[in-house]
Formats: sequence, C-alpha cells, structure tokens
Amino acid sequence: MKRSYDAIIVGGGVNGAAIAFNLTKRGMKVLLLEKNRLASKSSGAAAGMLGAQAELENNGPLFQLARRSRAMFVHLAEELKEISGIDIELVNKGMYKIAFSEDQEHEYKRIIQIHRQAGEIAEWLDGDVLRKDEPTLSEEIRGGMYIPNDGHVSPYRLTAAFAYSALKLGAEIKEFTEVFSINDKANQIQGVITNEGGFFAENVIIAGGAWSGKIVSELGVGFDILPVKGECFSVKSHRTLLEKTIFSHGCYLVPKSQGRIIVGATMKENTFDETVSLDGISILLERAKKIIPSIVDAEWEKAWAGIRPQTGDGLPFLGEHSGYKGLFIAAGHFRNGILLSPVTGELVAELVIGNVVPELQAFGLNRLPK
Amino acid sequence: MKRSYDAIIVGGGVNGAAIAFNLTKRGMKVLLLEKNRLASKSSGAAAGMLGAQAELENNGPLFQLARRSRAMFVHLAEELKEISGIDIELVNKGMYKIAFSEDQEHEYKRIIQIHRQAGEIAEWLDGDVLRKDEPTLSEEIRGGMYIPNDGHVSPYRLTAAFAYSALKLGAEIKEFTEVFSINDKANQIQGVITNEGGFFAENVIIAGGAWSGKIVSELGVGFDILPVKGECFSVKSHRTLLEKTIFSHGCYLVPKSQGRIIVGATMKENTFDETVSLDGISILLERAKKIIPSIVDAEWEKAWAGIRPQTGDGLPFLGEHSGYKGLFIAAGHFRNGILLSPVTGELVAELVIGNVVPELQAFGLNRLPK
Amino acid sequence: MKRSYDAIIVGGGVNGAAIAFNLTKRGMKVLLLEKNRLASKSSGAAAGMLGAQAELENNGPLFQLARRSRAMFVHLAEELKEISGIDIELVNKGMYKIAFSEDQEHEYKRIIQIHRQAGEIAEWLDGDVLRKDEPTLSEEIRGGMYIPNDGHVSPYRLTAAFAYSALKLGAEIKEFTEVFSINDKANQIQGVITNEGGFFAENVIIAGGAWSGKIVSELGVGFDILPVKGECFSVKSHRTLLEKTIFSHGCYLVPKSQGRIIVGATMKENTFDETVSLDGISILLERAKKIIPSIVDAEWEKAWAGIRPQTGDGLPFLGEHSGYKGLFIAAGHFRNGILLSPVTGELVAELVIGNVVPELQAFGLNRLPK
Amino acid sequence: MKRSYDAIIVGGGVNGAAIAFNLTKRGMKVLLLEKNRLASKSSGAAAGMLGAQAELENNGPLFQLARRSRAMFVHLAEELKEISGIDIELVNKGMYKIAFSEDQEHEYKRIIQIHRQAGEIAEWLDGDVLRKDEPTLSEEIRGGMYIPNDGHVSPYRLTAAFAYSALKLGAEIKEFTEVFSINDKANQIQGVITNEGGFFAENVIIAGGAWSGKIVSELGVGFDILPVKGECFSVKSHRTLLEKTIFSHGCYLVPKSQGRIIVGATMKENTFDETVSLDGISILLERAKKIIPSIVDAEWEKAWAGIRPQTGDGLPFLGEHSGYKGLFIAAGHFRNGILLSPVTGELVAELVIGNVVPELQAFGLNRLPK
Repeated sequence: MKRSYDAIIVGGGVNGAAIAFNLTKRGMKVLLLEKNRLASKSSGAAAGMLGAQAELENNGPLFQLARRSRAMFVHLAEELKEISGIDIELVNKGMYKIAFSEDQEHEYKRIIQIHRQAGEIAEWLDGDVLRKDEPTLSEEIRGGMYIPNDGHVSPYRLTAAFAYSALKLGAEIKEFTEVFSINDKANQIQGVITNEGGFFAENVIIAGGAWSGKIVSELGVGFDILPVKGECFSVKSHRTLLEKTIFSHGCYLVPKSQGRIIVGATMKENTFDETVSLDGISILLERAKKIIPSIVDAEWEKAWAGIRPQTGDGLPFLGEHSGYKGLFIAAGHFRNGILLSPVTGELVAELVIGNVVPELQAFGLNRLPK
Repeated sequence: MKRSYDAIIVGGGVNGAAIAFNLTKRGMKVLLLEKNRLASKSSGAAAGMLGAQAELENNGPLFQLARRSRAMFVHLAEELKEISGIDIELVNKGMYKIAFSEDQEHEYKRIIQIHRQAGEIAEWLDGDVLRKDEPTLSEEIRGGMYIPNDGHVSPYRLTAAFAYSALKLGAEIKEFTEVFSINDKANQIQGVITNEGGFFAENVIIAGGAWSGKIVSELGVGFDILPVKGECFSVKSHRTLLEKTIFSHGCYLVPKSQGRIIVGATMKENTFDETVSLDGISILLERAKKIIPSIVDAEWEKAWAGIRPQTGDGLPFLGEHSGYKGLFIAAGHFRNGILLSPVTGELVAELVIGNVVPELQAFGLNRLPK
Repeated sequence: MKRSYDAIIVGGGVNGAAIAFNLTKRGMKVLLLEKNRLASKSSGAAAGMLGAQAELENNGPLFQLARRSRAMFVHLAEELKEISGIDIELVNKGMYKIAFSEDQEHEYKRIIQIHRQAGEIAEWLDGDVLRKDEPTLSEEIRGGMYIPNDGHVSPYRLTAAFAYSALKLGAEIKEFTEVFSINDKANQIQGVITNEGGFFAENVIIAGGAWSGKIVSELGVGFDILPVKGECFSVKSHRTLLEKTIFSHGCYLVPKSQGRIIVGATMKENTFDETVSLDGISILLERAKKIIPSIVDAEWEKAWAGIRPQTGDGLPFLGEHSGYKGLFIAAGHFRNGILLSPVTGELVAELVIGNVVPELQAFGLNRLPK
Repeated sequence: MKRSYDAIIVGGGVNGAAIAFNLTKRGMKVLLLEKNRLASKSSGAAAGMLGAQAELENNGPLFQLARRSRAMFVHLAEELKEISGIDIELVNKGMYKIAFSEDQEHEYKRIIQIHRQAGEIAEWLDGDVLRKDEPTLSEEIRGGMYIPNDGHVSPYRLTAAFAYSALKLGAEIKEFTEVFSINDKANQIQGVITNEGGFFAENVIIAGGAWSGKIVSELGVGFDILPVKGECFSVKSHRTLLEKTIFSHGCYLVPKSQGRIIVGATMKENTFDETVSLDGISILLERAKKIIPSIVDAEWEKAWAGIRPQTGDGLPFLGEHSGYKGLFIAAGHFRNGILLSPVTGELVAELVIGNVVPELQAFGLNRLPK
C-alpha cells in the first residue's frame, strides 16, 4: 500500500473534501482521512443555506470571505457535476430575513445599509409584499430584508461532490480511519498515526470541525472550539408552501426539491451528543408555525442534529501553525461551513502549496489560545 | 404447491394471526394471507395498551369481551414464548387515567363505580398521591383513576408471536398476497382468488382491519368500517420518566423498555393516508408536556401512524355471514385490536370449527349495513 | 375539496408521472393517484438503464419507440431540472454489451448490423480494447457490442421530477389513494371510486404497472400482464471500478455516482412478492464476479426487488379502450419502463387530448385478451 | 451535575454494561461512558452464540471461564427481565459442530474426549442422525459434535438489559461521551477527561473492546489488541430451516426467532473499517449453501460487520494494572464477548470492590506488552 503523500487531510466533512479537491487539482498527491463516513457529522446535518448576508450582519473579513465564497457556487456546481456526476442542488431563489417587530425592522434596515455599502444587494419589503410573493407567510410578519443572492445547496451532495471529484482526479479516501497522533521531526510535520497505521506527508491539514481540537492537542496546540448542537427537522408537502428561504431570529425554513422544507436549527452549547430532544422539536415547531401557520398540514419527515464548531471570536481558523511547519488548520466554521467551503478549499490549498494568501490573514492561527 | 386448506385467513395483523394460531391449535390446516408484510399496518403501529378499563367506560358486551381478553394475556405470553421463542413484552404495572378538572374527577369517580360493580378494580387517587408514585407528573394533574390491571404489550411482537406460533404448529403464511375476490358456490364459500392464484377452503375469515370492507364488497356484503388515523411518536431517556401507563383525554404515554415512551394518539377520520402530519406531532407534544413537563428533555426517536377500523356502533364485527356459509368476519376493533386479539382468536376459532359462541352474539354480522 | 378533473391518472410510477406532466403541460387539470407512495414499486427499484439498443435486438415498433424515447432525455433532463429543481442524473457514457463465447460474438455482430441499418450506432470491440477502456473487466470477456448512446438515469429521481414538475404546473397528487373501481355511464368513463371517495373525470389513464390488470378487471377488461420480479443489489467503492454500463446475458452493472454500482437483475415470473431471495443474490454475485472479478473488494450496500409488468407479446399497452370512451391504458413496459417514460408521457398525452398518434398503433388495446 | 463516582466504566458494549450492572448491584455509584450509542459496535453486531464448547477446544483457564459464564445465563435471563423488562432471547436448544471430512471427524472426536474429561457433555452423531433432527442439512455433512449446552442470546438485548438494569438500580449512563484521557495522581487513578468535561472516580474500568488500546495509551500502558472484522448476514424464512445452531469451520448458522437465521462470520484482520465487502458475502453464502442447500430460498434480510478485539495469546485482559491503582481493564474477548459477559461482569466487579479473584489470574495485565 502506498503510504506517502504530499498532503493528508484529516476530516471528511465539506471543508476537508473541498481542500482535498483543490489540492488534487493543484497536482498534489492527497489522502483524505475520515474517522467515520464522509459527511457523517455536521456536513450531512446542515440545511445548506448560503446565508452570506442573512447570517452575517457586519462588514469585515468574515463577511468578505463569505460573499466571495457564495459567488463561487454557480461555477463550482457545474465543475463538480462535470467531474463527479453529482448535482449539488444549488438553488438561487433568494432569501427573506423576516421581522416581527418594529425594532427588528429598524435593525434590518440598518443592516441593509451596511450590505449596500459593501456592494451587496438587499432591500426592505413590507409584509404585504412578502405575502404576495409567498402567500403562506403569517399575517404577523411585519416585513423583511430581501436578499436575492443568498441561496442554498444540498450539503451532503456538496461534500460528496468535492470528495468524489477529488477521487476522480487522483486523491485517495479512507473512511473509518481515525487519526491518533500527528508526527513531527524538529517541528516539521511528518505524517499521522491512525488505526490503520502510519501515513507520511509533510503537510497535514486538520479539517475536523468540532472534533479538531482533540486531534491536535497532543502537539500542545490549544484550541477553543466549542461544540454547539443544532437540531433540525423536515416536512414534505404536495402543496408548494414556499419558494424562497425564510430566515428569522431562531428559525429558518429552507425549501428543497420534492416539496421538502428543512426547519432549523436550535443552538445547544457544549455538547457532542447528536440526539434530538423533544424540546428542540417543540421550539422549532412553534417558531415554524409562527412563520407559516399552514405548515402544520405538511407531512412529518424526520429530525436530526449536527455539532457545529464555534470559535471564541466567531471566525474560523484557517492557516499554518507557526510552531509546526506543514500543520494547517481549517476548522471552526460554526454555522457557515457549507457556505465557506468553496473559498476554504481554494485558499487553504493555496497556502499549502506555498503561496501567500492575504485574505486569510484575519483567520490566522496566532489567535489560538496558548 | 398445496392449495387446499380448512381455513384461509385474510389479513396478517394481530387478529388474523391470533385466529390462525387458534385454528391451527384446533387441528385445522390454515393459510394466513397478508397483502403486505405481517403486522405492517395498524398492528405494527399501535402502542399496545391493554386498556380494558381505561378505554371502555360502560359495562356491556364490549367491556365483558375486553376484560376477558385482558385476563388471557399472562398465560398467553408464556404459551407464545414457549412455542415461538418470542417475548410479547407484557407489562402489568397498571395505568393512571388522569384528570385535570373537577368535572373529569366526577366523571371518573362515576366510572370507578361502574367498574367496581362489574367486578373490576379501580380507585380514585389524588394528584399528590399520583406524584408520589410518578414524580414527573405535572402539578396541574388533579388526580386520577388507578387501574392496576390495565397493562401493555409489544403489538408487533404479539402479532409475530401469534403468527410464528401458528407456523410452528403447521400453518402456512404468505406475505405479499392480495386477495382479489372470494369464491362461493351456492353461497358456500369455496376459497379466494389472489395475485398468486386461487386457494381453496370452505372457511374464509376476513381480518383485514380498515381494509376489510373492500375485500368483501364484491360479494355484496356491505360494511361500515371507517378508517381513523392515529399518529404517535416515541422518545427515549436514560432517566426513568414513568413506570405506569398514563391515560388522559386525548393523549396516552406508555413506558416501554429501554427508557422508551410512546406518546399517542391522534384521531383523524376517514383517511387511509399513513403519513404523520406536523399538526399531529404538535398536538401530541403539547398534551404530553402538560402531563409530564420534563418529557421535553427526552430524546426524540420517531413518529408513525396507523389506520384504525371504526364501526358505526363501536363494536367489532365478529361472526359468520348469514348469506354465505363459511364467510367469517373479524374486523372493526378500532382502538382495541391488540387488547381484544386473544379473545378474538379464541372465540372466532370456536365459531369456525362449528361451535356456538354466545359471547359473540352482540358482535354479529346482522349489524352490517344492507 | 375539488373533485372534478380533466384526467385522472392511476399509478404514481414513472409512466403515470410522465403522463401527468405531459397532460398538465397541455393545459389539462390532472389528478395523479397512487396507492402507496410515488415511485414506491418498480419505478423506485429499477437500475435506470436506457438500453434501447442493449435490451432490444430487432427493429420494429418497440425499437422505434425506444430510440425515440432515449433521444428525448437530454432535453427532458434540462426541462425537469428547470421546473422541479430535480436532477435526474442522466449519464450518457455508453454501454458495452459483452460476449463470453464465439456464438455470442456472432449473434451480437448480427444485431450490430440490424441496428446500423436502423440508423443507430453500434460497433464490435475485442476484449483487449474493452479492457483498455475498462481495466477491471475480466480476461474471459471475448469482446462486446459498444453502444455509445445507451445511458442511464436515476429512476426514482426521474419519477419524482415528472411528478413534482406536474405539481408545479398545477397537477394534484394524492398518495395512499387506492382505486377501487372505475365508473362509466353508457360506456363513457366518469371517474373513479377510491378509498378517499369518488373523483370525477372523463379521462382515466391506468398506469399501474403489474397491478394494472386488477384495476380494470371490474369493467370486464381483460389483461395479460405477468408480474416478473427483478432482484438487484448495489456496491460502493472508492476506486473507480467502471465508467460505462456493462450489459450481459443475465447481468448488468450500472455505475452510478459516488462510486455506486447497481448489479441487476434476476427474472422470477409470476410473483408479486417483493422480497429478495438469497438465491437471487447468489446468482447475481456469481455473474458480476465473472464480469469484474475485483468487484468482490467493493462494499456491500443493499439489495432490493421490483415487479416488472410483462405482456404476452412483449409490447406495452398504450391506447384507448374501444369499449370505454375515456379509458386509457399505459402499462406493460416490462424491463423498459424508465426508458420509455418520456415517449409514453408525450404520446399518451396526445391521445388523451384527442389527437391521432400513429406511432402507438402497434401498442393498441385491441391486443388485450377478450 | 454530579461528577463524582465510585467507578467509571469506559465502553457501553456488553462487557462494560455487565460490569456496570454488577458494580451497581454491589452498591457502587457507577458511571457508564460510551463514545457512540450503547451496543453500537461489536456487541450489536455479534450473532450471540454461547459457544463455550464449539469455540473452545482445549481445557484451560479460558474454557473454565467460558463454561462458568455459560452456566450463568439461565438465572441471569430471569434477573435481567425482572429488573429491566428486557428479554435477552436466550435459546438453549444446543449446537451441532459439523464435519465434512474424516480428518475433521477424528479431530472432533478428540475434542469430545477433552470436553467430557472436563465434565461437559458432548457427543459424536453421524450425518444421518443429524439430518433426521435437522432435515435441511446437506447430504455432504459427515457428522458432527453435538453440544447440548451451547445456546445463544440476542447480543443487543443482552447489552441493553445489563445497561438498563444498571440504570434502574442507580447507575448513570452517558452516550456520545468520548474519553480523551485518564487522570492519575501518584499512580492512583482520579477519573477521566471527556468531551463533556471531567468525571472523578478512583476506579476506572476500560471495557472498550478493540478500541481499548487507544484509551490507555497515554498512560504509557501498552496493549496488543488486534481488530478483526467479522462480517455477517441474515435471512428470513416462513419455513423452519433450522432448530439448532450449526457451527462449522468458517461458518455458523444461528436460528433466531421469527424465522431469522444469522450467517457468520468472516475474519479480516487489522482493520476498523465496519463495512461489509461483497467478498465477505460471497464467502459466507457459499459456506452456508454447503451446509444447508435450501437456504437459497430464504429471504435476504441484511448484512453487517463488527470489529472483534483479538489478543496475542487469545485470552482477554481482565485485571487491575500494576502501575496504576484503580485502573482496570476488561477487554480482548475476541469472538467470545457475549458468552463471557456474565462472568466478566461478576468477577471484574469483585476485583474492583477489592476482593481477590483467583479465577482471573490467567487473564492478568502482567501479560500486557511493556
């Protein structure tokens, strides 16, 4: 068995797969390691919103990264479909971030100004205008911020498309392979030790989401990634309940194909427990009913949860470690892992092959706790 | 292939399987036909309560049938385990039928009197007494009727135990076999025509639950069985939330093994649609929270639905048709199919082998619409 | 509830959904009825091969219908994606129909001549050429017929795309709705009686696959559709085992996305039993190993079965019944239901709206048994 | 949250659960930690054979441990059912260890002598005698060793019964809780650090099966547990194919309730990959057909795999570590984890509470690699 690579990526979620794809495209021999199955954790659990504007309110490095990533999806969808045959189910019908109160209206109008100044499109629409477009929306909705460029994808399919595209281009993928430790020699990374033995590479990229801290802890690399559980459920209907994605404080509704709507997501801090509580369903159900009263007629499909990786300052860690040459981290994307995966894949790949990437400066590992 | 039998049973739910078991024990060559899989419809969807007293308030033929059937479970559990190796998970810890209002208290006290006069045990307990025994019960609960003899079983396992016991004793079972029509010759039943061809028998027992009417309609036998959907969900917990079954107006909670609680069931009339609506979950969830507020901490497991067969007068049809010798019907058990299956199996088998069964007089087919 | 339609389609498989889509596009108010769930029977079980040339050896009406239908997929895939958002996963990489013996070689070369005369592309390739292109193919393979235009789709997604496109354009869909009988008045169809009550329409199209005969039997319309079970299994691999579809006597291998290969299909006559036997797996496994020895290293995924509707003369029934105005049948597609669905949808829709469709002459209902 | 316990058990498989149950019975405050879900790894994958004599050929400490454990099941089944309501589906119908060749016959007759000398029952039966009892056995079977006391249980239910019995008696269970490291203070164990924070106890018992080595590696405790994958599949039949368990070189067939037969198990060394390969199914299928030719008519159910923990000398590690007071290991049960769980639970619990357990001497941790 070949055991020597140019780069080893630890974590078969959407960002690990995106990096594998981008490094392989750049000619590297890549090994993608996943402890479980591809996309089996939060990348398979996400709703797939590309909420660059819905999720991020203020201009700044993360907003810039997010808008850049969002803009990459149209081309990426074609490229991945061409290589892997997998359609990532990109939908670009826009989003309404809805307000129930006058305070929210003022707040959203302020955000609209910020986004416009940043060069993005956003617009306030009154409730009646929203309901004309989406007749199932509640009469209680005061209005909303219309964001034409926030769409959504299938996160499972996006991860699979990255991974299988990498595979087609020559990468190797190993599932059920857990990394026990990372080797270095005089602070130059040498590879990893796993339950399937050792694999050699001078570049190791940790893309383990909420589980990343554990992987690097042996190297004395501290991490402040907090696991935050998000619970979701989905319903199905043979009536069109919604065309656009609805985003609100504490609840979003994402209309997928085949009449499916994903309702998400709770925020439960500091747990790796992937179960859904009745409480989570109760909360989401009440919120969803407040937005679309007739959603109660839809068919229950299922509930699930994922563990998001939250960082102390809200920014992901994307960079090379100053103490270990060849140790890269790409983790801590919190609620925006799907959205940020195209740009993460591209820019981290650039870093790994040795280029300077100024866009990543704000996300550097110097922010890691000592 | 042998195609000639003493009796053919149409319907592989709990009552069809119970009749198959009892007829086989009585020496008949039996064929059990099921359109889908055994217990794939309401017998697999039920919560398995044996609520002879919780469900039935007034003394009368159905109450008598139900108490007789309930009393059969202890011995039956042993017999079926012995023959088939299947444990039906009988639990005999009793039930609380809880009241939230003074009116309900008066009503339940009246029912207690009726049940005592009928020779059954029942007792009113105040809320504090209930909460001493079941500390998770809400402070709002005024009190309840304690029914020590109402228990529960696993309905899927009960059906399987009846069917596989019949099989061990010599019966044949065919799944995926749909009955298209029933043959007669001068009004003596001759067998059935199915998608797998014809099968001959002079006794055909229709035990098709809510689907029974369709099967016999060609013979000009009318039926007024109304399909009533019941939606349920289940939660799991590593904390003991409940020991006894809780029955209330519009919601019951049945504590199963492994920390599982089944919460049921809605009543949605006149549909065969086996999907669960979000509305169903919302209603049950609110009711369950009202009874056990801390149930919200439990883990969501899953939701499902079944279609109960309701008759016009609330009594099942259990008898031979006066117009067709050898045509028996055992259907329309509504919410009590699991509870009534032991007695249904036994008494219908007695009828089929030619005995007079006075206990079934009130359930005769003379009540069928013309 | 609206209960009056221009056309009612009975059967939510791929052909029923295709007809619903085409009739809705032509302006009709359409109701699509499905006894179970959409695509829950053979349309969900198929491998999705578009084997116009691989499956059909001789020129004739069915070959002409099949090549016409195959040619429709490229445009259809775009149209359905546009309307419903569903990608049908059309893959057009061609097929190898492989030969192990000299006799097969001669036979396939003869077929190649026929296909070329019919204007289709086909070519004989020697084993070494095949193995250069598909290196996992066995050394025992003598050669094969290369058919560049036979591709495959996802049959479940195709059905869903037809159905949800119809829905978007205004059709109604009712699942869990079983048709009990078809009404007529002086031989003009009036609608159907179902377990959800009556629905009115002067056009009823039976697209019930192997279950079609039962639906129309009450009208005295005979049918000779034989149910033929096909068993399949699938494997997954992170190594590319195959790019093109491999078709051989008794076994085909269809490479889907994400490294999945579907291995199919047995032929078991005269049963509606949808279980997979160990025998079926054993047979397919031996055949698959003979074609690609290294397939044994792939990961087992799952096994399933579907029931194909075979007609006496091998041609589907596509036409209006001469005895009942407004009664149409579109059933009996046997192994080619997915392939033929685009043309079935289009031409049957043309018939229903009253146009003359000469292409369907050979498939008329005058072939029905009396 | 209470975070202090008398003992913490790491691993929610059958042996961890058995120890939790036994320690709780002995009055300890116990915490059972499981990285995933209870019984989600090999304890849920096993076939549940209690093959004390079928698996172990020579007298010695493991044989003695196994026969003692096997003898505990009858009482244990009652006790666990009483406390938890869970039936472990103990079947005591005996086993045939079958021979195809004269060499095997001689070998088995030799083993029979050994077992008899050890006080166990075993007997050679010729093929015709076997086939009289189990008519589906192949004509090629020469004969077999009859072992009346080797039975089987449901391994998932056994694990659940241990765990939920422990829970009823006061233990706590935490799923999705991964142990990152074990704390000690001057070589006295102090507790564990997990992804849910720290938990304190002076006794930590590692019962992590094939994953145990990783847990203790940080303490410098070496381990030579080799992961050995076992693949299985199951079939179902409405015909009785088998009453007794059949054990042969390379394949066993375990008849469960509801007509289910489990066919196992391959041996694939040195992998944690829980997928089933087509190769595994092919091998087992051929072996099963050789034993019961008519098994091909049975219905395919499913395939799965588990990872067994194999030790260098074939004996489990059951003892306290000499270097760390309070660190116990109960792992390395290889193919006999289910069988050995009653005795493991009891004797390890005795050790933990401070008693001397001479029966465990041969299984001591002094055999660990340095």
